Amino acid sequence: MRYNAGMKEPDAPRHMTSEELRRHGHEVVDWIADYLATLEQRPVRSQVAPGEVRAALPSSPPRRGEPFAAVLDDLDATIVPGLTHWQHPSFFAYFPANSSGPSILGELLSAGLGVQGMLWETSPAATELETLVLDWLAELLDLPATFRSDGAGGGVIQDSASSATLCALLAARHRVTGGAATSAGVDRPLTVYASTQVHSSLEKAVRIAGHGTASLRLVDVDDEHALRPDALAEAIGADLADGATPCLVVATVGSTSSLAVDPVAEIAEVAHAAGAWLHVDAAMLGCAAVAPELRWVGAGLEHADSYCTNPHKWLLTNFDCDAFYVADRAPLVEALSVLPAYLRSAASEQGGAIDYRDWQIPLGRRFRALKLWMVLRWYGAEGLAAYVRGHVAHAAWFAEQVRAHPAFEVVAPVRANLVCFRHVDGDERNAGLAERLNDSGELYLTTTRLDGRLVLRLGVGATQTERRHVEAAWAAITAAESEESGR
Amino acid sequence: MRYNAGMKEPDAPRHMTSEELRRHGHEVVDWIADYLATLEQRPVRSQVAPGEVRAALPSSPPRRGEPFAAVLDDLDATIVPGLTHWQHPSFFAYFPANSSGPSILGELLSAGLGVQGMLWETSPAATELETLVLDWLAELLDLPATFRSDGAGGGVIQDSASSATLCALLAARHRVTGGAATSAGVDRPLTVYASTQVHSSLEKAVRIAGHGTASLRLVDVDDEHALRPDALAEAIGADLADGATPCLVVATVGSTSSLAVDPVAEIAEVAHAAGAWLHVDAAMLGCAAVAPELRWVGAGLEHADSYCTNPHKWLLTNFDCDAFYVADRAPLVEALSVLPAYLRSAASEQGGAIDYRDWQIPLGRRFRALKLWMVLRWYGAEGLAAYVRGHVAHAAWFAEQVRAHPAFEVVAPVRANLVCFRHVDGDERNAGLAERLNDSGELYLTTTRLDGRLVLRLGVGATQTERRHVEAAWAAITAAESEESGR
Repeated sequence: MRYNAGMKEPDAPRHMTSEELRRHGHEVVDWIADYLATLEQRPVRSQVAPGEVRAALPSSPPRRGEPFAAVLDDLDATIVPGLTHWQHPSFFAYFPANSSGPSILGELLSAGLGVQGMLWETSPAATELETLVLDWLAELLDLPATFRSDGAGGGVIQDSASSATLCALLAARHRVTGGAATSAGVDRPLTVYASTQVHSSLEKAVRIAGHGTASLRLVDVDDEHALRPDALAEAIGADLADGATPCLVVATVGSTSSLAVDPVAEIAEVAHAAGAWLHVDAAMLGCAAVAPELRWVGAGLEHADSYCTNPHKWLLTNFDCDAFYVADRAPLVEALSVLPAYLRSAASEQGGAIDYRDWQIPLGRRFRALKLWMVLRWYGAEGLAAYVRGHVAHAAWFAEQVRAHPAFEVVAPVRANLVCFRHVDGDERNAGLAERLNDSGELYLTTTRLDGRLVLRLGVGATQTERRHVEAAWAAITAAESEESGR
Repeated sequence: MRYNAGMKEPDAPRHMTSEELRRHGHEVVDWIADYLATLEQRPVRSQVAPGEVRAALPSSPPRRGEPFAAVLDDLDATIVPGLTHWQHPSFFAYFPANSSGPSILGELLSAGLGVQGMLWETSPAATELETLVLDWLAELLDLPATFRSDGAGGGVIQDSASSATLCALLAARHRVTGGAATSAGVDRPLTVYASTQVHSSLEKAVRIAGHGTASLRLVDVDDEHALRPDALAEAIGADLADGATPCLVVATVGSTSSLAVDPVAEIAEVAHAAGAWLHVDAAMLGCAAVAPELRWVGAGLEHADSYCTNPHKWLLTNFDCDAFYVADRAPLVEALSVLPAYLRSAASEQGGAIDYRDWQIPLGRRFRALKLWMVLRWYGAEGLAAYVRGHVAHAAWFAEQVRAHPAFEVVAPVRANLVCFRHVDGDERNAGLAERLNDSGELYLTTTRLDGRLVLRLGVGATQTERRHVEAAWAAITAAESEESGR
């Protein structure tokens, strides 16, 4: 029914009472516990066609409030069948999207508290816990001291690595232009560098920041898809000769396609010689450093100007939670700080407090540190290490099976929890396999292109994934291959 | 204890079991219900000094996992005293930060499902419910048909109005430059216009996008702090004569300082005559249109190219939930779309699906539509109207008291739920009053500057605020005034 102005004066709004909140809250908690416990019974990838979900729901909002049970009914009947289950133990696609009990409850607490952490003053504990927890994470990952908050640097939670990359670009631009903070007002064009394997968010950032794709140099990679420092030096040299100002170099530690790892220290040398900012994007792989034997992912970070990794990918913390660190917070804050009268506070003006709104694109911010704090405390350093270690072992096992099979080959180094592989019969065969497997609902994997060829990606990173799920995936893959081959 | 590589091989990580999730989940739900029910007993603004919260917590993460109860203990002992309680019924500061039972449970569900809505393909229901719910909201707010998803336009949930403004700027730039999507590559400088009362996020957006503060024209306002269309026309005319390209005009419907309302239709005429994009920022006031008698806040929107309002401010939906609408989605999507191989999907390439990653700055996205859907269903159109109407009535009552008091004056039109007022004795007196009141913990209000004078702002917009809280605020204000005056 269309809402219109002719209706009679309504009663006061019916807020959910304290008792109703308890009752429905318990229902939702139980619903989630059941959902997570029975995920294996669902197809991983949603089987719906475009428009199907919407068509099953009313086209207009209700005039009068509805009971909570009606929403839960629609959730079961319509919403869940339309979801692709990222928490499914047989989800091996895209990237891990970790969640866990303590993290879910941390998000719930954050929603229940409903505080704004944009300034220290608007909720001191939200800011201070965030600073502390990012120092904790720096310790767990053995990050260099430059990124701790007790010096010139520090960490902040961003919604995503995309935003971290954009912030790194803005800080870099601020520094290399001496505060001009503009792409239009500088005499020399600013240029940005990364490998051909860099995440697409860098191109998005460069476009958002107004530099245009033409300012982006995608540098050649070596046989293992890692950026070649000599090619970087060559590209920078050519731009300098052309009168450009190198602004930002992004090194990737764990590319999205294949977990390729750029040589950070060598890249830093080239970048800094040219006066450029070095950002290390370790969104996919940085959290691996909770396991001491995987600390090689942090090699060279002491030379980086900024760094990010995603606990919402592979550290049991639900989206959004990207940990972004800078070695010097001044250019970041100067690039992003605007101070109107209605946001002035004594604490900030006396310099005793961090105002995280100046470390990010938006103004407002949720209390996201709570969920990360709860995850780190629930699991402890040893639990986190064991978690990551398990996935790495599963991926290594899977790679062994692929290598031993005559019809498949591993096409990139298997360094952690991702296996890039392909059927030897070429792109069409691989595309067909992926489609068949994903349509089955038994598992979900995605494809990419490496060296011009279509490649299957199996990423082990869901919270509930155990060896048996990887074994089942391999069984499904070989069965599909056999059937298609008519064997 | 510092985590180090010498420790022995740990056991498998101890995930929270299904039974533990139920038990601790119920504890957290009950904790939140208790927190919300007893908020009135707490000081509104945190009383801690900088550093106090952090100092009370361990400086390093635990090596072994801790029980959940330890976290809840610290929450009570350390975190909550360090919070400023935005959900407190006597919170009248900054802007409303609405939350409600159905919204909190929607956020919980979203965390529990843990799906990614970046592409239609990555969870179809997340995308389709978002499109539907934004159409529902458009109907509830009586927005023009141009913003519905069945034509060229449509809505999307952004984290904040800051991001909506940035997206509007990027879409505008894409359109006026014919897709150059850069500030450096255009022959003529791009200029941006708004009133002196525009939110600071516009300057932030202009700087992020690389145009620099110098490209921003802050146009004079009239006696009611609304943008003067003649001053806008003059500014645009001068820039055109100088060879600039007007890119974006932002009209504000409900300024943060004083809820000033710009004349949208007249501004649209000036903006469009110059080829500029018109964005209407109704973050503070747009949701008022759920009440038919407040539909004047939507006047002229049929001429806007984009529009945003914040259910996380004044529509019972916890942060983050900004509703952003465009009349033509093509320039927005073209400005923000980057398509790497690992994100290709059949559904997108066949054009049958919306991929919301191309409507926003980051790539990843939570399933935020759930909480808005649950709010709209729980309250219904009539409940939402009653909610907003109550706050407006409370603010009107407060303004009457101020007007009747010899020592105070109302200094801006009271159109909805914000009263700007001041003590007649000048800035110092008003600053002192604000400090005294906020230090008391009984209520929290903030200040701004209007016409060069320091002004107190009392915004009625917390979910639990009733007439008695506004009466108590007025009693505290007059008592403080009397005491200071020695009466």
